[in-house]
Amino acid sequence: MKVAVVGASGYTGLELLRILLRHPEFEIAAATSEQRAGSSVGDVFPALRGRLDLRFEAALPAVLAGRVELAFTALPHAASARAVAGLRDAGCRVVDLSADFRIHSQATYQQWYGEHPVPARLAEAVYGLPELHRDALRKTKLAAAPGCYPTSALLPLAPLLRAGLVETRGIHIDAKSGVSGAGRKLADEYLFAELDGNCHAYKPGFAHRHAPEIEQEASEVAGGEVRVTFVPHLLPTARGIATSVFVRPRGGADVERARRALDDAYDAEPFVRVLPEGETPALQAVRGTNFCDVALFADAHNDTWILLSALDNLCKGASGQAVQCANLMCGFPETMGLLDTALLP
Amino acid sequence: MKVAVVGASGYTGLELLRILLRHPEFEIAAATSEQRAGSSVGDVFPALRGRLDLRFEAALPAVLAGRVELAFTALPHAASARAVAGLRDAGCRVVDLSADFRIHSQATYQQWYGEHPVPARLAEAVYGLPELHRDALRKTKLAAAPGCYPTSALLPLAPLLRAGLVETRGIHIDAKSGVSGAGRKLADEYLFAELDGNCHAYKPGFAHRHAPEIEQEASEVAGGEVRVTFVPHLLPTARGIATSVFVRPRGGADVERARRALDDAYDAEPFVRVLPEGETPALQAVRGTNFCDVALFADAHNDTWILLSALDNLCKGASGQAVQCANLMCGFPETMGLLDTALLP
Amino acid sequence: MKVAVVGASGYTGLELLRILLRHPEFEIAAATSEQRAGSSVGDVFPALRGRLDLRFEAALPAVLAGRVELAFTALPHAASARAVAGLRDAGCRVVDLSADFRIHSQATYQQWYGEHPVPARLAEAVYGLPELHRDALRKTKLAAAPGCYPTSALLPLAPLLRAGLVETRGIHIDAKSGVSGAGRKLADEYLFAELDGNCHAYKPGFAHRHAPEIEQEASEVAGGEVRVTFVPHLLPTARGIATSVFVRPRGGADVERARRALDDAYDAEPFVRVLPEGETPALQAVRGTNFCDVALFADAHNDTWILLSALDNLCKGASGQAVQCANLMCGFPETMGLLDTALLP
Amino acid sequence: MKVAVVGASGYTGLELLRILLRHPEFEIAAATSEQRAGSSVGDVFPALRGRLDLRFEAALPAVLAGRVELAFTALPHAASARAVAGLRDAGCRVVDLSADFRIHSQATYQQWYGEHPVPARLAEAVYGLPELHRDALRKTKLAAAPGCYPTSALLPLAPLLRAGLVETRGIHIDAKSGVSGAGRKLADEYLFAELDGNCHAYKPGFAHRHAPEIEQEASEVAGGEVRVTFVPHLLPTARGIATSVFVRPRGGADVERARRALDDAYDAEPFVRVLPEGETPALQAVRGTNFCDVALFADAHNDTWILLSALDNLCKGASGQAVQCANLMCGFPETMGLLDTALLP
Repeated sequence: MKVAVVGASGYTGLELLRILLRHPEFEIAAATSEQRAGSSVGDVFPALRGRLDLRFEAALPAVLAGRVELAFTALPHAASARAVAGLRDAGCRVVDLSADFRIHSQATYQQWYGEHPVPARLAEAVYGLPELHRDALRKTKLAAAPGCYPTSALLPLAPLLRAGLVETRGIHIDAKSGVSGAGRKLADEYLFAELDGNCHAYKPGFAHRHAPEIEQEASEVAGGEVRVTFVPHLLPTARGIATSVFVRPRGGADVERARRALDDAYDAEPFVRVLPEGETPALQAVRGTNFCDVALFADAHNDTWILLSALDNLCKGASGQAVQCANLMCGFPETMGLLDTALLP
Repeated sequence: MKVAVVGASGYTGLELLRILLRHPEFEIAAATSEQRAGSSVGDVFPALRGRLDLRFEAALPAVLAGRVELAFTALPHAASARAVAGLRDAGCRVVDLSADFRIHSQATYQQWYGEHPVPARLAEAVYGLPELHRDALRKTKLAAAPGCYPTSALLPLAPLLRAGLVETRGIHIDAKSGVSGAGRKLADEYLFAELDGNCHAYKPGFAHRHAPEIEQEASEVAGGEVRVTFVPHLLPTARGIATSVFVRPRGGADVERARRALDDAYDAEPFVRVLPEGETPALQAVRGTNFCDVALFADAHNDTWILLSALDNLCKGASGQAVQCANLMCGFPETMGLLDTALLP
Repeated sequence: MKVAVVGASGYTGLELLRILLRHPEFEIAAATSEQRAGSSVGDVFPALRGRLDLRFEAALPAVLAGRVELAFTALPHAASARAVAGLRDAGCRVVDLSADFRIHSQATYQQWYGEHPVPARLAEAVYGLPELHRDALRKTKLAAAPGCYPTSALLPLAPLLRAGLVETRGIHIDAKSGVSGAGRKLADEYLFAELDGNCHAYKPGFAHRHAPEIEQEASEVAGGEVRVTFVPHLLPTARGIATSVFVRPRGGADVERARRALDDAYDAEPFVRVLPEGETPALQAVRGTNFCDVALFADAHNDTWILLSALDNLCKGASGQAVQCANLMCGFPETMGLLDTALLP
Repeated sequence: MKVAVVGASGYTGLELLRILLRHPEFEIAAATSEQRAGSSVGDVFPALRGRLDLRFEAALPAVLAGRVELAFTALPHAASARAVAGLRDAGCRVVDLSADFRIHSQATYQQWYGEHPVPARLAEAVYGLPELHRDALRKTKLAAAPGCYPTSALLPLAPLLRAGLVETRGIHIDAKSGVSGAGRKLADEYLFAELDGNCHAYKPGFAHRHAPEIEQEASEVAGGEVRVTFVPHLLPTARGIATSVFVRPRGGADVERARRALDDAYDAEPFVRVLPEGETPALQAVRGTNFCDVALFADAHNDTWILLSALDNLCKGASGQAVQCANLMCGFPETMGLLDTALLP
């Protein structure tokens, strides 16, 4: 099946190329890049020489739609929505990696991102977290691949919220991300010399755009309003997100029930690994893979449970998850092209 | 004034040498190392060639006490207590960098570290956080330099606890440390290839030995029992600790009062910098210095305040703070030898 | 075809597991580790959980030989030779990743490594650099996968030596390697805190064991004695080798002829990419892949040509190349299971 | 003595501030930055909060010259020359950290950098390598602080060239630099995600602007034309340069004579440490210091000697050396403010 990667020269775009090159059913028929249009992929990214014999192009969505059955859009927000609209108008299936179709409420979107370019398309989109919305994803033609931080927080948290085991207010999330999460942005703070040996929080509280996204999905699964405080950090790594979620057990809830809720939720899931008791998730164990590792710890003396997770922000946090959605949308086995082993060390 | 560094070949020992070499009053008269005894410091650590013309020795505490007026002990716990006892018996002033004299309660010490070798000496020790115990440090002959994590958590937290502005239960601490915090330990997890690009929590909950130390000091300043959940992480950096403390404002407490409490506490402190509103602490800004940067953020929608801090675990988190204590104990200006500028980048 | 990985818990062993898990023909039937025998692979290496359902075992070569058709041996030298002998005695095909069968001369081996445990088997082994010895590899039952440094130096150098375009004396090789090249060795110098931000040469001159290996193969291809000076360095990276080779063009030799020699040698090679003029090889472009990128630059004003190369020491420098050899030995397509795309970033 | 730092917001400018803050005689009276003019230094660089209470300004050279006795200029080339001219016209002593006054020949400068803005001032400048030009520096009012690579290559090489012990043609230099050597430049290749785990050569041969600078000084000391091939690399570190220089001993020259030449040259030098035989220089041992460590190795079997060096590109390779020059120009002890110990780890 021919697919296009729209916005292929960013980090999530490149990761899509890497994954799709190994996919037995999807064939990369087009890779677009406004800036690089006309250049061969291998000249721009020497790593892809001998792997992908294609030129970046600047094709219009309508034109692309005639050449491919499915497109991955990995453009900045707003620009992505417009490309999605063009592709969908022409009947093309789309997995969008921007934030444009993740937030259901047009008002909330506007508050965090500005006016939505194509609000009429919002209702059609399914939030692309297969562990929460698998059935809907099988039927949709537009999936909104979740943010990297929301994936890392929701996967450990959802089963406990669904089971009503934890308080829905006062949830505290502390997350640490490799710098590729910011894309290939030219800003001082992303320079090697600024980030090496460094680590710092940014936009702490309820100020990062992924915070309302976490609350939307957490509230939906909890069947009631969930409130989270969210403190993201920049790590001196290229990839990976390690997240701690501090929750308070709801009166009388037992940690063994919480452990069971996690196990029940993920025993049959191909990409979520609940770690053995006492083991903590680590970025290295998921690097380059579509796995999200999760673990639960209890601090009885302070009435707190800690949920920990680790994933690769470019893979399960973005492009891997997008391909997982595409597999579902196209009726392929969900794990197709995604069963990779982490690069160790 | 002649001083000794007992256990000089570990990371905190080396940092003591680096700091003391610039100190105008302290003169390094002895550097001990069981393993390296007999070797010249410069042969073992080429960085010190041309800076310190001394041989590591294996001198006994009683002998050292005859040669120096003050000793810094940086040995593993228990071993350190025994060396401290020998030095104190001979009348030598001591700043101990191990955990042996931080915990006031012998029972608590025993629970976390095993039997205390010289419990009779516990009462004499002052917890060496000058911002909390300056007057006592001026009078003592035995200071227990605090753990790196406790310093990073207590400095932002203490003023709010003292002012009664935050709940004393349900405090959540998420801390990230460079690997030198573990000392120069030969274990797989500290190898470059295991840690590069990696990040993971360890001993989450109330399982790390620094947790009871935080509670002891926080409870003392709050005038009542404080409970914290503590989740430490290993960062792929050599130095630095970045800590987030999630607290809930006590009914009606206003964030401006909290801000004022921080400012009042630290306006006159030479080594604690309260950052301007909106700025987050970063490891790079404190690397190699005795500063601890702190910041306060409020998330009103979830009734949570976030305290952030950054310090250098080997400096303000260990050896710099030890010299700060020694300055107080000896009547020198508190900042003597400690006003350094971070290495940027 | 069932295969075994003997010595599977080291870095080259793990890389073999990673590669073999994707190989459509080889099936990992056994993974041995003296230290880890009895433990499940996933418990020891969480990254492999859900990927490989196997326990490390301590099986004897003779026993293994009854269960598999081919074994990869990745043990320390001497130990590896003994395992190889056992496997070969029982008729099993072997790709050995140690140094034991790389050096043809027993005397040279003894000088650099000590007495050879099974010198009688030396003649049987083929040096496993497919670009130089493809035909022999197709016929052998014992391949000696080359050292990582030799691969990085020989691939750019061999075509120029073969064509007689460069002087065979006074060749200067400066190589920089990620730390995984040393294996998972517990030594101070491999600790994160010692290596982060660091870089240094070690064993410069003609002192590293890979130096005689380079000379053996270079001399064979040149048809006469070649002399190299070899300066390896440790880089603060987990993987990758970047090598510079300084050569002097033989009287009158034109750089265009050299360029043609490289192109002719590698146009049809699947894993050697000669970069376009002006482009330099980079570790990132080959990380996790079996590619070796090479480039040629001329400095006419000083009568010097510079050959540059980059490869992944664990993949093309060890385990990838070993699988490439195994493919040849078993009659599979040479690239089977090895066409991967670098993890970017 | 009041001094100014012109171009204080780049990496060499910041390093000047760090060093000057510890200098007992120089007082920072002005720090200029076009982009940051008006902002307090601490707001732009939080690391400097509480250390330097000053605002960046955009003062003209003529105005500055009325306020300070000496200025350090750290601007891009050409811009630096114009500022130097203004300062010198007003009688101010200057240490220039740009390339503008390093090259004696106006024609060579033009070939590599473009037209020189103030060629009339070229003759006045002294190349600021104190180990080669100490007496001239004591008398000059304009010092041109050397490039970082040239310092790393010339210090080990000069004594051997001066003694006539090595061939002056066919010298091969392979150098590896931390990224701060490129300044705080916003370009893809300097982003953390591009450089982490990466290493690559750039401008190999005789293409980097530091190559003719090396040849100028090497030729002067050799008393005849020296030819070098120069291959610089980018390392995944913030600071540091490790350099290998491959030379051929001149007929009959003995390595012990070379060793003696190095010892004789540097025994009395405060900032060049000749390492004991067998030890290799390492970036970590010189980080943040004004030391350059050098070592000599011989490979008799290939008639080659290898000179190795390590220095901190921002300190001995730029700002530290600039202060060393300023000390000489002002009659202060040469080491004043520069005896620092490396940050370990």
